Amino acid sequence: MTDDETRAQELLGELRRSIDNLDAVLVHTLAERFRCTQEVGKLKAGHGLPPADPAREAVQIARLERLAVESGLDPEFAKKFMRFIVDEVIHHHRKFQN
Amino acid sequence: MTDDETRAQELLGELRRSIDNLDAVLVHTLAERFRCTQEVGKLKAGHGLPPADPAREAVQIARLERLAVESGLDPEFAKKFMRFIVDEVIHHHRKFQN
Repeated sequence: MTDDETRAQELLGELRRSIDNLDAVLVHTLAERFRCTQEVGKLKAGHGLPPADPAREAVQIARLERLAVESGLDPEFAKKFMRFIVDEVIHHHRKFQN
Repeated sequence: MTDDETRAQELLGELRRSIDNLDAVLVHTLAERFRCTQEVGKLKAGHGLPPADPAREAVQIARLERLAVESGLDPEFAKKFMRFIVDEVIHHHRKFQN
């Protein structure tokens, strides 16, 4: 391995350690978010509210697009990501109501 | 609105404020994660390394499954989530190499 290759491998290792730490943040944050949405699901089921709430989702998505722009995340990806999470939550709420 | 309905709406509002805060954490963490993976992409492109690394991905997924169990997140969802993120990253790396 050349010096340049060794340095590249070192840099790759450093970046991967940061990525692993950030992934731990993501998993724990998602776990907490699902704890909250489970409570929302119980409340909705207990009061006959529909599992999906398009008005709330529109506000959430607009806000996340703004946060994405501010933080340098691709806003299209942020929307795709939010859709991915919200679909999972609605799927949980439906399971809970059935 | 009955007292019970008012209380339910209050609780829903509280939970949604927590969800909004957690979403801000998710967006900023994802933004930082993509900053890291962009650097990884540059390193890989600069050294002729392939965009995907199945061995690294297998280790990441196993670790995240463990973190998911510890934090009370559905490990199947954690795997689906990681696949979603990694696919986006590989897509970015390919764009960078072309």
